[in-house]
Amino acid sequence: MDHPIRNLGGKLAFWSFLTFQMGEKMHSIGIDIGGTKMAGALVDDAGNILSELKVPSPIDDSDQMIEAIGSLISALGEGQQVAAVGVAAAGFMSADREIMYHSPNIAAWRNEPLKKRIETKTKLPVLLENDANAAGWAEFRFGAGAGSNSMIMLTIGTGVGGAIISDGILLKGGFGIGGELGHAVLNPGGKQCGCGQRGCVESYCSGTALLKAARELASSGDAKAARLKELMLATGELSGEQLYQAISEDDSAANELISELGQNLGTAIASIYVPLLDPELVVIGGGVSAVGDRLLAPIRSSFERLIPAKGYRPELKIIKAKFLNQAGLIGAADLARHSVS
Amino acid sequence: MDHPIRNLGGKLAFWSFLTFQMGEKMHSIGIDIGGTKMAGALVDDAGNILSELKVPSPIDDSDQMIEAIGSLISALGEGQQVAAVGVAAAGFMSADREIMYHSPNIAAWRNEPLKKRIETKTKLPVLLENDANAAGWAEFRFGAGAGSNSMIMLTIGTGVGGAIISDGILLKGGFGIGGELGHAVLNPGGKQCGCGQRGCVESYCSGTALLKAARELASSGDAKAARLKELMLATGELSGEQLYQAISEDDSAANELISELGQNLGTAIASIYVPLLDPELVVIGGGVSAVGDRLLAPIRSSFERLIPAKGYRPELKIIKAKFLNQAGLIGAADLARHSVS
Repeated sequence: MDHPIRNLGGKLAFWSFLTFQMGEKMHSIGIDIGGTKMAGALVDDAGNILSELKVPSPIDDSDQMIEAIGSLISALGEGQQVAAVGVAAAGFMSADREIMYHSPNIAAWRNEPLKKRIETKTKLPVLLENDANAAGWAEFRFGAGAGSNSMIMLTIGTGVGGAIISDGILLKGGFGIGGELGHAVLNPGGKQCGCGQRGCVESYCSGTALLKAARELASSGDAKAARLKELMLATGELSGEQLYQAISEDDSAANELISELGQNLGTAIASIYVPLLDPELVVIGGGVSAVGDRLLAPIRSSFERLIPAKGYRPELKIIKAKFLNQAGLIGAADLARHSVS
Repeated sequence: MDHPIRNLGGKLAFWSFLTFQMGEKMHSIGIDIGGTKMAGALVDDAGNILSELKVPSPIDDSDQMIEAIGSLISALGEGQQVAAVGVAAAGFMSADREIMYHSPNIAAWRNEPLKKRIETKTKLPVLLENDANAAGWAEFRFGAGAGSNSMIMLTIGTGVGGAIISDGILLKGGFGIGGELGHAVLNPGGKQCGCGQRGCVESYCSGTALLKAARELASSGDAKAARLKELMLATGELSGEQLYQAISEDDSAANELISELGQNLGTAIASIYVPLLDPELVVIGGGVSAVGDRLLAPIRSSFERLIPAKGYRPELKIIKAKFLNQAGLIGAADLARHSVS
């Protein structure tokens, strides 16, 4: 029979091994895969980025993509105690997060067993998540949503990404493709959306829709679009940066467009998201959210005009995201850490 | 020092006490409070109703309501081992399920501390839940949704009730009023809904909306409404039962109305519920669901016409609820049992 003290020593060693294995106080790696480049970061357990790397995305070749992800993991993890790797990417994934069914940006990823393939490049546990979900999780844990229990996040960029956190849990959906807040229909029979439906929130509220509307206005000859036209003529075609410049200059035509986008978002929040999800908090992120109150004010005023029983119900807050471009990285890293703890 | 065997005996007694306290294999009581009567049942841990009682709802007097609920609990629990009581009622409740903010049916319940008041009438733990949520939970645990992980339920009755179960958890929302599937806006600027919004799913798809449309058609003089008019003239005003009779007779005008209701529901499922929630299963219950495939077929065909990427995504099932009137009772009883186990 073993000596009891030796036993105790063994137990302590076991627990410290387990704590090590469970990744407490350890770092994790987040990778965010975009259509032109992929970013990776070493992230601590409070969501702080300790180091970050970016490399181009070789989107036409799945092998090269996997190689590039593997190199990022190796470079970031070298000499570090890392618990797990989280990989965020746009697209439809299987509910078990093993397979990327369809990536909009990476043509080579169709029914790709992405988790297993990345695992061939690292000994660390790998977790996949939709990029908008990962971004929402980062805000929930370390950003604008910290301290809340139920929130949604809208990422207003090229498209309109969504994430739903209900009672502290990220909603993935029965088939893994829930939380697509941008593809709820706001205006039946309205603008054609890339998803095949008409009138989706995304077809009115994305950065792409905003820029398209601004270009149409700039080319229309409408007198109020004089500044937009001037900016457009300087370069041939109005860019997102030029539109942002016009908004920053308080150009009334540009502000009208951003206000319209905000009103549509406020309508979607009041008439679709809140009845179903009743979040405490709506977090607005993504590139377009950089314009701040010029976007948030019309969202809030339209929400307040439409929400039923105003004054007789607890009212949610609508606020700007904390993280701009790093939410996906931070969220993926934290979800990966959680998956092994 | 105690003898080890006596210690073990004590531990066993403790565990058996704990098992007893935790309500395993014990029954629970469900109460479903309606605007005209309240029903109570003793329910076993497999969702079977062992006994059931009904009494009128004295809706104008909160004290009498509480008395009536207390008597139901006493009568059902007499001589039984009961773990807990679950009470289902329509209305907005606080997130902690202590306060009934506003009950649509019970005029006396405004900011009523309902849980505490019922607890004065019983020594059992009491749990409150929204009736549509309780019904959804019953279907999830013991009915059409058994074996699924993520489902939604639509209760098509006087209104359109909703329940969301995501990853095995009933979605309550940040302020306790989530899952209101009937109050998502399907048709902006459309029919006025009782909730204050226009164009809600409920204003097109409730039993009330169906009967209103049938009465309008019967009074319109339209030749195709001959049978509806005949039924109406026999009694002065078309009743729900008469409308059900016309549907059962395959009257084309009545079937057109139910088909339109179904198409609207299918649209809401494809264009609102699925993008956000991605359930494996949609369960259709409530009084109107008694017409069966006459309702389910148009829901399914409209859903399949509208859902994007059809054929390239896993497809949810749309099926009829198992329980008709007892879902609220069974769900409330089971939720109460879970809350103490």
